[in-house]
Amino acid sequence: MPVSTFVLPASLALQLVSGAAPAAKPASSPASVKPAATAKATPVYSQAVAEKLIGPALTEGHAYARLAELTDGIGPRLSGSEGAAAAVQWAMRGFKADGVKAWTEPVKVPRWVRGEERGEVLATERTRAHPLSLIALGGSAPTAPEGLTAEVVEVTSLEQLAALGDSVKGKIVFFNHTMSVPADYGRFAGLRGRGPAAAVKAGAAGVLVRSLATASLRTPHTGSTRFEPNGPKLPAAAVATEDAELLHRLLANGPVRVKMVLGCSELPEVESHNVIAEVKGREKPQEIVLISAHLDSWDVGTGAHDDGAGVAMVMEAARLIAKLPQAPRRTVRVVLFMNEEHGLHGARAYAEAHAAELPRHVAAMEMDAGGFKPVAVSLRAGAGGQDLVRPWLPPLVALGAANFSAREAGGADLSPMAPARVPFFGVEVDSSRYFDYHHTMADTLDKVDPQDLARSTAAVAWMTYAMAEMPTTLARPEAPATPPGAPAPAATQPKATGH
Amino acid sequence: MPVSTFVLPASLALQLVSGAAPAAKPASSPASVKPAATAKATPVYSQAVAEKLIGPALTEGHAYARLAELTDGIGPRLSGSEGAAAAVQWAMRGFKADGVKAWTEPVKVPRWVRGEERGEVLATERTRAHPLSLIALGGSAPTAPEGLTAEVVEVTSLEQLAALGDSVKGKIVFFNHTMSVPADYGRFAGLRGRGPAAAVKAGAAGVLVRSLATASLRTPHTGSTRFEPNGPKLPAAAVATEDAELLHRLLANGPVRVKMVLGCSELPEVESHNVIAEVKGREKPQEIVLISAHLDSWDVGTGAHDDGAGVAMVMEAARLIAKLPQAPRRTVRVVLFMNEEHGLHGARAYAEAHAAELPRHVAAMEMDAGGFKPVAVSLRAGAGGQDLVRPWLPPLVALGAANFSAREAGGADLSPMAPARVPFFGVEVDSSRYFDYHHTMADTLDKVDPQDLARSTAAVAWMTYAMAEMPTTLARPEAPATPPGAPAPAATQPKATGH
Repeated sequence: MPVSTFVLPASLALQLVSGAAPAAKPASSPASVKPAATAKATPVYSQAVAEKLIGPALTEGHAYARLAELTDGIGPRLSGSEGAAAAVQWAMRGFKADGVKAWTEPVKVPRWVRGEERGEVLATERTRAHPLSLIALGGSAPTAPEGLTAEVVEVTSLEQLAALGDSVKGKIVFFNHTMSVPADYGRFAGLRGRGPAAAVKAGAAGVLVRSLATASLRTPHTGSTRFEPNGPKLPAAAVATEDAELLHRLLANGPVRVKMVLGCSELPEVESHNVIAEVKGREKPQEIVLISAHLDSWDVGTGAHDDGAGVAMVMEAARLIAKLPQAPRRTVRVVLFMNEEHGLHGARAYAEAHAAELPRHVAAMEMDAGGFKPVAVSLRAGAGGQDLVRPWLPPLVALGAANFSAREAGGADLSPMAPARVPFFGVEVDSSRYFDYHHTMADTLDKVDPQDLARSTAAVAWMTYAMAEMPTTLARPEAPATPPGAPAPAATQPKATGH
Repeated sequence: MPVSTFVLPASLALQLVSGAAPAAKPASSPASVKPAATAKATPVYSQAVAEKLIGPALTEGHAYARLAELTDGIGPRLSGSEGAAAAVQWAMRGFKADGVKAWTEPVKVPRWVRGEERGEVLATERTRAHPLSLIALGGSAPTAPEGLTAEVVEVTSLEQLAALGDSVKGKIVFFNHTMSVPADYGRFAGLRGRGPAAAVKAGAAGVLVRSLATASLRTPHTGSTRFEPNGPKLPAAAVATEDAELLHRLLANGPVRVKMVLGCSELPEVESHNVIAEVKGREKPQEIVLISAHLDSWDVGTGAHDDGAGVAMVMEAARLIAKLPQAPRRTVRVVLFMNEEHGLHGARAYAEAHAAELPRHVAAMEMDAGGFKPVAVSLRAGAGGQDLVRPWLPPLVALGAANFSAREAGGADLSPMAPARVPFFGVEVDSSRYFDYHHTMADTLDKVDPQDLARSTAAVAWMTYAMAEMPTTLARPEAPATPPGAPAPAATQPKATGH
């Protein structure tokens, strides 16, 4: 999921973390829909359609079964891997079985492959050696086969690293931080995304980053790190929060040396694919409501929350919409992006290939914050968006999502469409436990609650239909000052680092 | 910690798991001390002594600092390892620094050593391969170097295994279960302790056991398994709960084959030591109040909760008691047992070497349920125990422990003293999160709350003093029908399996 989702004021973060359903606010809240009042008014939508979308999503368990197929049947699917290729075929079979027309579009993706990885804190006169629980970051260079052994220097920011100047030459830079709640992800993801590149410029020999985690049982969290194209790289790994705290304690007592062995490698780019599917609109087929998720995952765990759940939601939304007696007014297009996690190449390929069509993309969403319960609807559009959407919210009351989020809709894979001023919408989920599992071997099917997934799927199906059916469309937002998906100098663009 | 601590009715388990401080019960509860009433009565004890024990325990942070020394400085200390030997030396230095007379007593211990370990679910036509998160059980045989590949048979009880007869020949028996709360540990620990021995008799080639866990991030939990002395063994490992659920789901769809590689080995026994220390009693030095913990740990993690915390508590209790202006009436003896986790040899060696003295052991406790906050005082004694102890409870009111547990006091290392009818006492702690970490690499210092440890340490120091100072001693309990610590036929003694 994108960092930007988690850059928000602490007050809002608390609202998210508390898990309190915003729909339970007093009815006087302007952002909430009042069930009693709206239930008696004549709805602007067909109640029968709401039932045909939300009913099956809540009762058939189809999204969860599909998620089980993807995670148990295919497992991890890092872009460029056999798993990713298998996932493309699986998605194509799924759409076919659902009677939804689908095709693939080519995407060149990097192929980074994990190898042996281990590390230890070397013994000193006072302390015995400790194994480190670590995981290479995507894009890391390997160490020499015998490993890298060096002294550790702890820093807590890129600024602090810069201030150290030459003194980190030949050392292992250890980026420590204080992440404790999901809202901290945005604050600290830059240490993972840009820290290694900064360290290699300073002459460091390697990097360890504290995992971006809200829970840990010695669980290291991987993720992408970015070096300059064709520039120097270094071995970079995340350590579990426990190991970060151990390093911090040991460093308080004297010098610490670490040995790390990383056997990862960067293979040549391979051709992969976005998977695209469509339910043609009945009146304005040229207008496109895009719903998306990313098909790739990290190579540890099975990407159940990130982003198998999103894939299951949007595929199921398309299946249910395709089964309606009458297609919605506009075309619903599903995009399962490839390579969100490690380059965003699928998102860029889509925006390029469909550049001429983007003015006709009237709304776009990406579900990429886990398979949790829905808590709100989000928008990023021009003036009047909430007024347009509000009459369509009553079917979300019992799902706990019939209110507007204070956060803008978005998604890493949507960012290349932002310059074309495509309006974004979203179903916000309760991601308070997302960073317990995010980018770890523990992101597995058992972490997804079938009820929560069903409820979010229902909300996605309904909001997709609403966007495709409402008489008018969202006003287009202002173009962003800097396209969020475009490469930008590291110092000025923290939001693009942490997919 | 011993299984028996967690064999209790569900209602009591709930009380424990809820974390509600029993001291907060209505004052009418017969088991609770009433602060208001007792504060005004003349105490049977010296208030000044209570302050000298509880004050420093709560304010100096000495127990936590000592736990940090043990876990960061020495780390894992499986019996027979260098870490265990270093821990013995560390404890001796600690007692010396505290001015508490200490000595070692020899214990022969097994030396089982972990090696390479990995596993995978093999691919089928329908599913790709999945890595397994596994950990060899202590006492496991190794596989052949190329690993063991076999079909998996799932069972949920020893009875079900027995019913399968010859059909498990050559297969990997997978013991699955439904542990979800600490009270389940006693129900299912037998699958780990005795399952592999039962499987080898049935002709199985290997065993996988679902981890005994109340939380997991793909976290496998090790522990001891017992084969018949000089009998056949097999490779036996625990899998993380996630992997157990994956196996269960895959088995619902057809045959599953697993490859596992375990490189563990059983080396010759080595000589190790119990560490014993004493504060001589001023009036009845021949009467011994024994307080204990175990110095060994598993070889993953640093044994912070299991049982570094217990070690820190009892060492600190002895230090504080030794600093009192006047020693208590009876002798306080600290025993840091070796090899609780993988054989109980230290406990047996102590009971044998001190057999003549056991009638003079007037009370004994073992702290071995984690470094959590204290919630109650427990006893295992003859009639009148609570009446004798109750007047000494008021100093525990503010610690949340001034009431009696419904569970009997005990401890795996105390069990060999039970036939000599030594009365047991204990400070019960809130172990609701204990099995999140128990026997895993995640049992590390950061999991111990310094405040909780300080409070339990204060309670231990006070209760130890109380037992050593009160005018009379606990009545001796009935001898157990079967000595809990003695080896017994597997079929009849589930409680002795899960240390």
